[in-house]
Amino acid sequence: MIISNDLILIGKKAKEAARKLAFTSTGAKNSALSAMAQALVDNQEEILSANSLDLQAAEEKGLRKSLINRLRLSPEAIMEMSNAIHEITKLPDPVGGGEFWTRPNGLRIQKTRVPLGVVAMIYEARPNVTVDAAVLCLKSGNACILRGGSEAIESNKALARIISDAVENSGLPQGSIQLIHKTEREYAAQLMRMNKYIDVIIPRGGEGLIKTVIENSTVPVIETGTGVCHAFVDKDADIAKAVSIVFNAKTQKPGVCNALETLLVHQDVAQNYLEIMGDKFKNGGVEIRGCDRVQDILDYAVPASEEDWGTEYLDLIISSKVVTDMEEALDHIYKYSTKHSEIIITENYSSAQRFLNEVDAAAVLVNASTRFTDGGRFGFGAEIGISTQKLHARGPMALPELTTIKYVIYGDGHIVE
Amino acid sequence: MIISNDLILIGKKAKEAARKLAFTSTGAKNSALSAMAQALVDNQEEILSANSLDLQAAEEKGLRKSLINRLRLSPEAIMEMSNAIHEITKLPDPVGGGEFWTRPNGLRIQKTRVPLGVVAMIYEARPNVTVDAAVLCLKSGNACILRGGSEAIESNKALARIISDAVENSGLPQGSIQLIHKTEREYAAQLMRMNKYIDVIIPRGGEGLIKTVIENSTVPVIETGTGVCHAFVDKDADIAKAVSIVFNAKTQKPGVCNALETLLVHQDVAQNYLEIMGDKFKNGGVEIRGCDRVQDILDYAVPASEEDWGTEYLDLIISSKVVTDMEEALDHIYKYSTKHSEIIITENYSSAQRFLNEVDAAAVLVNASTRFTDGGRFGFGAEIGISTQKLHARGPMALPELTTIKYVIYGDGHIVE
Repeated sequence: MIISNDLILIGKKAKEAARKLAFTSTGAKNSALSAMAQALVDNQEEILSANSLDLQAAEEKGLRKSLINRLRLSPEAIMEMSNAIHEITKLPDPVGGGEFWTRPNGLRIQKTRVPLGVVAMIYEARPNVTVDAAVLCLKSGNACILRGGSEAIESNKALARIISDAVENSGLPQGSIQLIHKTEREYAAQLMRMNKYIDVIIPRGGEGLIKTVIENSTVPVIETGTGVCHAFVDKDADIAKAVSIVFNAKTQKPGVCNALETLLVHQDVAQNYLEIMGDKFKNGGVEIRGCDRVQDILDYAVPASEEDWGTEYLDLIISSKVVTDMEEALDHIYKYSTKHSEIIITENYSSAQRFLNEVDAAAVLVNASTRFTDGGRFGFGAEIGISTQKLHARGPMALPELTTIKYVIYGDGHIVE
Repeated sequence: MIISNDLILIGKKAKEAARKLAFTSTGAKNSALSAMAQALVDNQEEILSANSLDLQAAEEKGLRKSLINRLRLSPEAIMEMSNAIHEITKLPDPVGGGEFWTRPNGLRIQKTRVPLGVVAMIYEARPNVTVDAAVLCLKSGNACILRGGSEAIESNKALARIISDAVENSGLPQGSIQLIHKTEREYAAQLMRMNKYIDVIIPRGGEGLIKTVIENSTVPVIETGTGVCHAFVDKDADIAKAVSIVFNAKTQKPGVCNALETLLVHQDVAQNYLEIMGDKFKNGGVEIRGCDRVQDILDYAVPASEEDWGTEYLDLIISSKVVTDMEEALDHIYKYSTKHSEIIITENYSSAQRFLNEVDAAAVLVNASTRFTDGGRFGFGAEIGISTQKLHARGPMALPELTTIKYVIYGDGHIVE
């Protein structure tokens, strides 16, 4: 694939910037972050007027209401972004620490945390990702290349210009933060082949985007995203907890990857539990797509098709199945899980332990909502995405996940015999 | 891409095996390993006769002597493999430990080490990789799919049958270790698209193989291999150390990735150092490809072309350049390094620190041979390869690098407000 000259230029600048950022002090990085936070507030007018161009174009194109809402910025949203950056300055620098040991021959080996280098983010129509990603990359000493969706291009251009100017004015290298202004698909495709300049690509967005990146990128990818999350209500569940947790996991914010999509219920408690749960879902406007046994108990449940079991609704819809025992629940999860977050609701110690051991997912929870799978709620202070792959990072990715290691070895004339 | 039925069957079996291996006890895994070690010794005749078929075919095809040597097994080599397995049983299990913390709301979060799942190895003509890879995967609770080169197919078939029988007879799941018997390229290509069944692919071999896997695999890859390793002899180098380390790094085992390929010499010591070093290289049969200034000092040095600076010779050849200062050395390394192992030889504290900080590589060493970049020499007890990428693992990869994490969360009816 031929890579266009402007992308190569961006790649070269990013690589040069990364070379310097790798040994920029925490103090200098935090000063730049504070400057970015201030610049967003100082340039609020410019951001909002760029944003209004995107909103206008979106209305004209007739985009969905939910998409337009994701696009929309406001003075409050800008203040929130700015405050979030100040919080990031308080987090520990993930770079520069590690462990070390001494070999019998006296060689001292340091396993040091260093930045990844150049991180490319490919995302969709949320302009706040432009700022989030740039901030987390900078704090961890990485240069970043940002490629947002065409719907948010004017907002992204304004945001990227403002924060990258602030970074340069703080004395950090030019090229630390770069936005690709061209939003044609071919540029994204070229980006995915820039192994010479990019160390990792993180796609953030819908299933289609992530699949495209995985299938086309020769640059290492961290897969984020899709969550077909299950709850298993065990025969020994506390029914009140089961109702409250399942309702929370499904409805508290249905459009996100850690929302619940499938409810599995042990047959011994199905009648009692589903009657209560069904009423609550009905009142909450949640559609239930059930197996035959669920439909027998809840007459307003509609039939679930085979496709439903693998669907991430991201909406007020839940699929539900009555299972004969935990074995069947485990098999169902094994078959349909995207390995994001899976919960069991039970008061039985051995059932809980078995579920935790045997279910393979980024997060497995007992008696807690899937919505807890989140960098902030885990106490990481920030999150660049939730990894659903197993290499490098799994689950919520925070600052340490934006670093790699370098072995630093102190010898005194050591040779291998 | 259409994936053949026999590969899908292998993938399914591996995935099923991985599901059970993930919570197989350390004791059970170690018993299986001991059984594998014993089975190799007990079936020595079968292994050697299979190996002789490969050797015969290699001779007939007129393969290079060095390749034939890599293929060759002997009773001693089999005993070594067997002993190495016993050593692996003594290493700590990388699975099942981790850290945990409690959130202000009482949620307890455990960051637990778990196996990756299914690991595929694609390698060339070394039959010992069949055993090495299987052993490290099993110890870390992973199922493995092995795909070796056609030159070693008979040896690999015998080895794989013997060790996988031993594993099954120990009560561990069938499918824990599987060799792909078909060696056509298309099967490797299909393997690289089996995201549904394989969690990671590790290619081991020459540059061509690794490049093919990186460019074609949609399954996450750990890049291993290529090492264009540099030594920089600083103006404040101890000349005796510089001679001994550089000679060791180049000649102790020239055919491996951590061997030295390029020698950069500060102009202030070039005359004195290169005269001594050159004599030693000349006596050791090492060809020197030098810049003009190297050729001025050593009349038997041949000219280095631009291509030489990027070449991994894996042979008794070294490229060499005189540099005006450390800046030029750092720039040269930045430009040509494959980020494997880079050394500085100096007695100057600040020069050493600068080099360690600014050079980006898996390993940077002061006053020690590049040959130390090795899992065994780092004290890891084993090694499945040396990663030259930044995601997941960098440098020598041992048992912990064959694991990922799973967050296990203990709640008591916790919901997100």
